[in-house]
Amino acid sequence: MSNALNNNPHRRYNILTGEWILVSPHRTKRPWQGKTEKNLTERRPEYDESCYLCPGNTRASGETNPQYTEPHTFVNDFSALLPDTPEEEVNNGLLKAESEKGICKVVCFSPNHSLTLPLMEVEDITKVVKMWKKEFRELGSSDDINYVQIFENKGAIMGCSNPHPHGQIWSQSSIPTEIQKKSRHFKKYWEKNKRSLLSDYLTQELELKERILSENEYFVALVPYWAVWPYEAMIIPREQHQNINQLSQEEEKAFAEIIKALTIMYDNLFETSFPYSSGIHQAPTDGGEYPEWHFHMSFYPPLLRSATVKKFMVGYEMFAGPQRDITAEMAAETLQQLPKQHYTKT
Amino acid sequence: MSNALNNNPHRRYNILTGEWILVSPHRTKRPWQGKTEKNLTERRPEYDESCYLCPGNTRASGETNPQYTEPHTFVNDFSALLPDTPEEEVNNGLLKAESEKGICKVVCFSPNHSLTLPLMEVEDITKVVKMWKKEFRELGSSDDINYVQIFENKGAIMGCSNPHPHGQIWSQSSIPTEIQKKSRHFKKYWEKNKRSLLSDYLTQELELKERILSENEYFVALVPYWAVWPYEAMIIPREQHQNINQLSQEEEKAFAEIIKALTIMYDNLFETSFPYSSGIHQAPTDGGEYPEWHFHMSFYPPLLRSATVKKFMVGYEMFAGPQRDITAEMAAETLQQLPKQHYTKT
Ligand SMILES: O=P(O)(O)O[C@H]1O[C@H](CO)[C@@H](O)[C@H](O)[C@H]1O
Ligand SMILES: O=P(O)(O)O[C@H]1O[C@H](CO)[C@@H](O)[C@H](O)[C@H]1O
Repeated sequence: MSNALNNNPHRRYNILTGEWILVSPHRTKRPWQGKTEKNLTERRPEYDESCYLCPGNTRASGETNPQYTEPHTFVNDFSALLPDTPEEEVNNGLLKAESEKGICKVVCFSPNHSLTLPLMEVEDITKVVKMWKKEFRELGSSDDINYVQIFENKGAIMGCSNPHPHGQIWSQSSIPTEIQKKSRHFKKYWEKNKRSLLSDYLTQELELKERILSENEYFVALVPYWAVWPYEAMIIPREQHQNINQLSQEEEKAFAEIIKALTIMYDNLFETSFPYSSGIHQAPTDGGEYPEWHFHMSFYPPLLRSATVKKFMVGYEMFAGPQRDITAEMAAETLQQLPKQHYTKT
Repeated sequence: MSNALNNNPHRRYNILTGEWILVSPHRTKRPWQGKTEKNLTERRPEYDESCYLCPGNTRASGETNPQYTEPHTFVNDFSALLPDTPEEEVNNGLLKAESEKGICKVVCFSPNHSLTLPLMEVEDITKVVKMWKKEFRELGSSDDINYVQIFENKGAIMGCSNPHPHGQIWSQSSIPTEIQKKSRHFKKYWEKNKRSLLSDYLTQELELKERILSENEYFVALVPYWAVWPYEAMIIPREQHQNINQLSQEEEKAFAEIIKALTIMYDNLFETSFPYSSGIHQAPTDGGEYPEWHFHMSFYPPLLRSATVKKFMVGYEMFAGPQRDITAEMAAETLQQLPKQHYTKT
């Protein structure tokens, strides 16, 4: 890659969404006098009696959590989507709307209130992966559920209202915008090449070695060339699987391992419990074949310069398109050089 | 509109972008135990010697601001886009990038450090509108500038690093993603109907009267049917203008008046200096005709329940698509009932 382009403002193309992102590498010198976040690194107890996700505690809905010892799921007490929404639509001139069915679930990763994914044992993260598989399979098998979005909001600055280790699953009847975009680009490539777009991309990244963060027998973690968030990363299975349900037992464990490796890097970067939203993008569950799909997990972390200074996706980003200050290569290099051991354990 | 749909989870279609948004009206009862923002309502002095935007002060670049008395613009000291970026591109397998040229400017709305748009006189906001016109015309006339994005980030939670009243203009050679989407939908409608999509939408909204916030002879402010942010609003000129340069003198003043009326509502909502990002979407400046375009100004404010609790666009929103809790109609009704006078002046 030309070095000049890498030091000058440029746009990069996201092969999965077809969208461009503006990169301004020269802008890292900008001083910051704006908002700073609190650095919350206080230790949490293993059990918190005021936490509505801890085993045995009562939730806002009045329900009591079981004394769970493994990952535990339940239907969200304040679900954004409901299973028995009556079918209706609005088609009034330029106003267009339709009812939407769905099921929202909460997934507690561990009974231990003090943990986060990077602090959990691989064995226990593997149980989370198994739980995601089970939920994906069960939710996806319903006639009304055509897409299952598994995600985690980690940290208060990512809108997470409870530090107990947990993620969410929102499943619904229509195919969300982001999935439609990716389906379109996977499909176009598949029809032309009869190969997965992400398999070919992975091959190229493994040759270049510039943006690779971690690898094991079954998975690779990397900073995608078109990353938007400062330390955005992506976990890609080497095998082309359409969804997580296709993972073998060895792959489940390898997935857990690479999630742990990546999130340890994140925590070590600014020696803080690194906030992010992560999500798994996979093929719809509407009964279609989707031979073009290749599932992957992405991490969108907002921190830019330190544990207290984040990147804001605001005016220009909302009205024009995403913009970043450091290049994907700068971010990858910084992450690559970090210790592989969690900073609290050395 | 069917009342049932309005009380149940549903999706609404954005006629300008072609994207859907998930609305969960039943979810407003959700308790909030997450992050709260600081409510910053302290009075600011008219002049702050540590502010790099106040008249006569020296900026980080070493340059000194003139003793300006009217809106003042200058090239951003930390521009994300630069005018003389050498032309280059990357076309390496699945990696695709190209250099980008542009000019970034800062627009100080007033020399008075203590003001914000809702607190400024209409006469002085009119001067800001005239400045936007001039900048749009001058930047847009360059061969290298094919799109001019005018925007404001207001408030620390919108990434604004200085409370001095100001906005920005980022102009560039390529057409940003959001503009491409809107161009496509304006064009499709124009080709079929030979009328502006937004003119027809405005006619329908003016008949329904449900989502109108404010009107004058030349402009209407409303909550769009497909609003994403809790109190999102849009200012639409009654005449179909492709860009702000086509505004007459009377229209300039009317634009200033409606900006003031809308931002006063916003401040009055939670009796705070209401944060938002606003931006003007208009036709590209690449020399094309764009008879389909109809410029408009949008406001994306994050506050949801109070001056300290905002809506987070995180996990589901990043990986699937936008989601909101209150309906556009609920938001419009709340805003409509507010006093028209700024709360600090009564
Ligand atoms: O240019 P500023 O005000 O320093 O920066 C602000 O606006 C920019 C344009 O929306 C964003 O890219 C930055 O993240 C934000 O902090
Ligand atoms: O469901 P929670 O954790 O209460 O809420 C969080 O995640 C949701 C899904 O991304 C968002 O819509 C909310 O804004 C955020 O606060």
